[in-house]
Amino acid sequence: MFKHDKQLLRQVRVDKPNPNYAAMLQEQIGGPQGELKAAMQYFSQSQRIKDPQIRDLFMDIAAEELSHLEMVCATVNLLNGHDLDASNTTVGNIEAQVLSGLSPMLTNGSGHLWTAAYVNVTGDLAADLLSNIAAEQRAKVVYEHLYRQIDDKGVRETIDFLLNREEAHNTMFREAFNRIQDTGSQQNWGVTKDSKLYFDLSTPGGKFFDPSNAESPSFKNPNPTH
Amino acid sequence: MFKHDKQLLRQVRVDKPNPNYAAMLQEQIGGPQGELKAAMQYFSQSQRIKDPQIRDLFMDIAAEELSHLEMVCATVNLLNGHDLDASNTTVGNIEAQVLSGLSPMLTNGSGHLWTAAYVNVTGDLAADLLSNIAAEQRAKVVYEHLYRQIDDKGVRETIDFLLNREEAHNTMFREAFNRIQDTGSQQNWGVTKDSKLYFDLSTPGGKFFDPSNAESPSFKNPNPTH
Amino acid sequence: MFKHDKQLLRQVRVDKPNPNYAAMLQEQIGGPQGELKAAMQYFSQSQRIKDPQIRDLFMDIAAEELSHLEMVCATVNLLNGHDLDASNTTVGNIEAQVLSGLSPMLTNGSGHLWTAAYVNVTGDLAADLLSNIAAEQRAKVVYEHLYRQIDDKGVRETIDFLLNREEAHNTMFREAFNRIQDTGSQQNWGVTKDSKLYFDLSTPGGKFFDPSNAESPSFKNPNPTH
Amino acid sequence: MFKHDKQLLRQVRVDKPNPNYAAMLQEQIGGPQGELKAAMQYFSQSQRIKDPQIRDLFMDIAAEELSHLEMVCATVNLLNGHDLDASNTTVGNIEAQVLSGLSPMLTNGSGHLWTAAYVNVTGDLAADLLSNIAAEQRAKVVYEHLYRQIDDKGVRETIDFLLNREEAHNTMFREAFNRIQDTGSQQNWGVTKDSKLYFDLSTPGGKFFDPSNAESPSFKNPNPTH
Amino acid sequence: MFKHDKQLLRQVRVDKPNPNYAAMLQEQIGGPQGELKAAMQYFSQSQRIKDPQIRDLFMDIAAEELSHLEMVCATVNLLNGHDLDASNTTVGNIEAQVLSGLSPMLTNGSGHLWTAAYVNVTGDLAADLLSNIAAEQRAKVVYEHLYRQIDDKGVRETIDFLLNREEAHNTMFREAFNRIQDTGSQQNWGVTKDSKLYFDLSTPGGKFFDPSNAESPSFKNPNPTH
Amino acid sequence: MFKHDKQLLRQVRVDKPNPNYAAMLQEQIGGPQGELKAAMQYFSQSQRIKDPQIRDLFMDIAAEELSHLEMVCATVNLLNGHDLDASNTTVGNIEAQVLSGLSPMLTNGSGHLWTAAYVNVTGDLAADLLSNIAAEQRAKVVYEHLYRQIDDKGVRETIDFLLNREEAHNTMFREAFNRIQDTGSQQNWGVTKDSKLYFDLSTPGGKFFDPSNAESPSFKNPNPTH
Repeated sequence: MFKHDKQLLRQVRVDKPNPNYAAMLQEQIGGPQGELKAAMQYFSQSQRIKDPQIRDLFMDIAAEELSHLEMVCATVNLLNGHDLDASNTTVGNIEAQVLSGLSPMLTNGSGHLWTAAYVNVTGDLAADLLSNIAAEQRAKVVYEHLYRQIDDKGVRETIDFLLNREEAHNTMFREAFNRIQDTGSQQNWGVTKDSKLYFDLSTPGGKFFDPSNAESPSFKNPNPTH
Repeated sequence: MFKHDKQLLRQVRVDKPNPNYAAMLQEQIGGPQGELKAAMQYFSQSQRIKDPQIRDLFMDIAAEELSHLEMVCATVNLLNGHDLDASNTTVGNIEAQVLSGLSPMLTNGSGHLWTAAYVNVTGDLAADLLSNIAAEQRAKVVYEHLYRQIDDKGVRETIDFLLNREEAHNTMFREAFNRIQDTGSQQNWGVTKDSKLYFDLSTPGGKFFDPSNAESPSFKNPNPTH
Repeated sequence: MFKHDKQLLRQVRVDKPNPNYAAMLQEQIGGPQGELKAAMQYFSQSQRIKDPQIRDLFMDIAAEELSHLEMVCATVNLLNGHDLDASNTTVGNIEAQVLSGLSPMLTNGSGHLWTAAYVNVTGDLAADLLSNIAAEQRAKVVYEHLYRQIDDKGVRETIDFLLNREEAHNTMFREAFNRIQDTGSQQNWGVTKDSKLYFDLSTPGGKFFDPSNAESPSFKNPNPTH
Repeated sequence: MFKHDKQLLRQVRVDKPNPNYAAMLQEQIGGPQGELKAAMQYFSQSQRIKDPQIRDLFMDIAAEELSHLEMVCATVNLLNGHDLDASNTTVGNIEAQVLSGLSPMLTNGSGHLWTAAYVNVTGDLAADLLSNIAAEQRAKVVYEHLYRQIDDKGVRETIDFLLNREEAHNTMFREAFNRIQDTGSQQNWGVTKDSKLYFDLSTPGGKFFDPSNAESPSFKNPNPTH
Repeated sequence: MFKHDKQLLRQVRVDKPNPNYAAMLQEQIGGPQGELKAAMQYFSQSQRIKDPQIRDLFMDIAAEELSHLEMVCATVNLLNGHDLDASNTTVGNIEAQVLSGLSPMLTNGSGHLWTAAYVNVTGDLAADLLSNIAAEQRAKVVYEHLYRQIDDKGVRETIDFLLNREEAHNTMFREAFNRIQDTGSQQNWGVTKDSKLYFDLSTPGGKFFDPSNAESPSFKNPNPTH
Repeated sequence: MFKHDKQLLRQVRVDKPNPNYAAMLQEQIGGPQGELKAAMQYFSQSQRIKDPQIRDLFMDIAAEELSHLEMVCATVNLLNGHDLDASNTTVGNIEAQVLSGLSPMLTNGSGHLWTAAYVNVTGDLAADLLSNIAAEQRAKVVYEHLYRQIDDKGVRETIDFLLNREEAHNTMFREAFNRIQDTGSQQNWGVTKDSKLYFDLSTPGGKFFDPSNAESPSFKNPNPTH
């Protein structure tokens, strides 16, 4: 069961309204590396996880991502201000001006509607954890892109917080990965010669990498027992 | 520039036509973990890579994934046989029967049209490599799902080959990741207290993972100097 | 902020696994009248609501719809059973068999991926409430469709509960509508002659309805002061 | 059978070309509250309606919405002017400039392609009528959004007409709803205790609405016999 | 302006209900070669056509395609019968059973929602006419696919009619093409050496076609003056 | 099998970075008339072609279109320059600024993600060739649109080359069409009276075209034996 607490996970503020910044920040509401995607991915994946600690982790983070979604929506809302004026929205999508009456939308920065195509679920815990580690890294990168371009101290504080939270999630997903190291798709890795070949199909070039010692993925860090 | 060689990367065969197997195998043509997605992801990501060896790797694998796409299409083609008959296609999508005249389609097993929403590109090499490692692991898992359910020796040989190739790509993407370990989004990791917190938002449960020693991702393997 | 309680809003059970029923029930996870749509619609709309009681209502229901989503996912999970076998999934989509390893997916019954195109937000409270009343009625209808076809007592208990909850939401959204009766898009209704004309464009037929006494929508019930 | 009359339902004009206004007005061609959506929704819903007067109403309005679509397309066409110049199209989508040679497109203001996900059909007349009442209200709101921002007398006359027509449709759909008041999904409303509960899941807050006297929706107006 | 005549363009009938046939025939309602696509394409393209006779042709055919859409919807409606039963819908999409209450849907045979991505408009009359000629040929092919598999005399009569109408449209679009032969994108064809080269990129093979005498497209038939 | 040669099919250059031009040129990467669509369409269609010379033609052109895709991506990359700055991207989509770190994306100019809905495959060679002839003509038109608006000599040279290549492909597809003139969907054309009727549904107007001498499509040119 989900419950909602009217206090934001962390308070948000903006220096002043800026519909272009609002359009850009939409990317992390309804884009492929955004908060809705993260929440839905971890929630969906969690459904078949048997390990109670890992399932707890997925739901802790899913609930946090929903809480991030709320923070980003609140920020976009403030950036959209109080006046419909598409003529000032020269960057990115204009749906807040022409459709939603300045409400945040489930679209990316250019107005593409959120799609469940962004969500990866395989039922294999190792694959799903790798998906999540990668997703957190990408989310961080997009926040970095936005940080550089949004010159508003209030928004930057929020972005900084969210960006650091993606790092924390990343760290914990790696811990979980190391715990289930030899299960599921991690098993029977590299047992055929096909898994050790290099096809040099782009030329000129060569074989600068060597798959001959194939092992399943394993992280050096983090160490849950440090 | 891309060139095409009429010889398949590896010859394919099927024991006999089976439109239900064809519909299922469509998943790896036009689904989120399929060959088109992989090819387009690595191709798109490669455009801004400056390290010539890593760029070569991405294009070697992109070309191979296109070659895999061709193998899966050829297999679906054989499985579709020679007679339009949707009444025998009781599993999954029927587009081969009603639309494409038994040609393979750029859809998943249930007929959802391929979308570029499956493709992740951030311009940050660390994030993109993690995306690819995860993508290869997922592709392997989907091939495992299909292997279990497609009781056709010819198809299974092809699936086995493709599955092992995903392992090889995975290995090499990890090698590349370790080479660029401390660049881009890997830098300045875990420098704020926010990156070390655990929000225990799903209850009952607890904090079974610990982000306090946050470090950026790093793989134990593979060892590029072995 | 969102929090998660591991107890389901209401416990679910199934008589026995049935992948066809699972595929059908997917409609209410990721279809246009499903639980994710409802949760996202009310959450998105709530962002700009100033009346604290109405905003509370929207978030109460949004959180409940997320909790319904979890219940339907848990039911689909049980119906999917433990064995990958697309050959037994002759009705609707096969993504649980070929892609998600029996996990519920954010798709409708036929495998179309959830899209934010299902979510309506206008920033006008009257319009948004009417959208929600209609959405709840449609959700009820789809559960009725499913109830008739899913011959499993456990699933039917869950559907019955969910269906009745949609009625409760519907009732409360109408109460809220009556409270804001003369605001926003409800104002200045029917002030031009154009709003009172009937264009009889389908023939033969006639003008069996009369817009000449145009007034803005108003519900007879429910009565918030009863 | 559909027939076309080359005379527009109402003549349109613009003060002068303005590609930004054209991009914005696209919202009502191919957006979720636009004319194509309305026409397709009523047409699709009408297919199984048995009451000949209500079916006539649906097709009268469907034909009118197609006629509105034509009016909006004609207006966008005039606003697009005669010269390809994306550099002057700083607001919203640029497809008229780079793809369609200044022809109107079936997209929303930001370029998202129209999707049938916007169309709601349940086969239950009460639910479908509520959907239509809500859809007309939303369409009105979007025209109000556009009216405020498009400073062109010619376009505003057209918007004013269309906005008022949505009111007329709204009125008539409510008349129809009241006629079929106790049928379909309106029956057996509120018969279980579950339909009368309030789950107070967002806190702090409370229970400001009361579903305990649940009745099916019913409109105070309009009165078809007034 | 569009008007609707309650008489179908041609009466339809089915031998008996068959939900599988209904699912298959959906392809021509909401698929890429279906009637909605055709109607919307010709309507959209017509908006900027200056030649009144050609514009008349486009709107004659657009109105006819809408009338075809109505015929196919009516046929699907009859095939869907009167009982919700997904268990009998083992071929293709199940949306009529779980969502629309047996109403036809704007989806293809496998349930993919109609998208304006199917509609091609360039603003260049030659290109648009070639698009339409191709579209009519494809529509014919899909009807042939369906004819072979739908063993119902009533449905086959309708398919036969529709298939032949696509031929008539094809013929007329070619007449129109020949009239505007040397305009727009037909001009200045083949003036650079680049337009006359053959890149032999797939090997082994060769150059079995010769672009060196490049001329713009021109049809041998039909002859508008015969 | 596909192979990649690091040399572009033709070298590209830009006068200077211009993110607005980059956004516009995206149309030919991931839009409906773009290079990915062309490559995927010919590749998909080729799978069931039996005539070895025509299959060779399709794969020659598919490989060339992939090579064009690479050229357009390289050009967009140069136009995107080296600095993230959405404030300078006032035309079209902003995904390169907020998501992809200046990498080209598989979207159109306004940010709509590429979809396989753009790809037409029927399994009928005549229909598929007509689709390709039309597709090449549309691609040429879009390049003409872009040429007029992109005032950069380097980009224009590339556009000029690509535009002329579309003409060459068009020519060769017509040659191939004439070779298979009387096969597949070209057979039994115009044998019923229905294929010779004109429905005059848009009024006022008339019947300015005459389908009574219906014949299947046939091109005057090109002549493979000239």
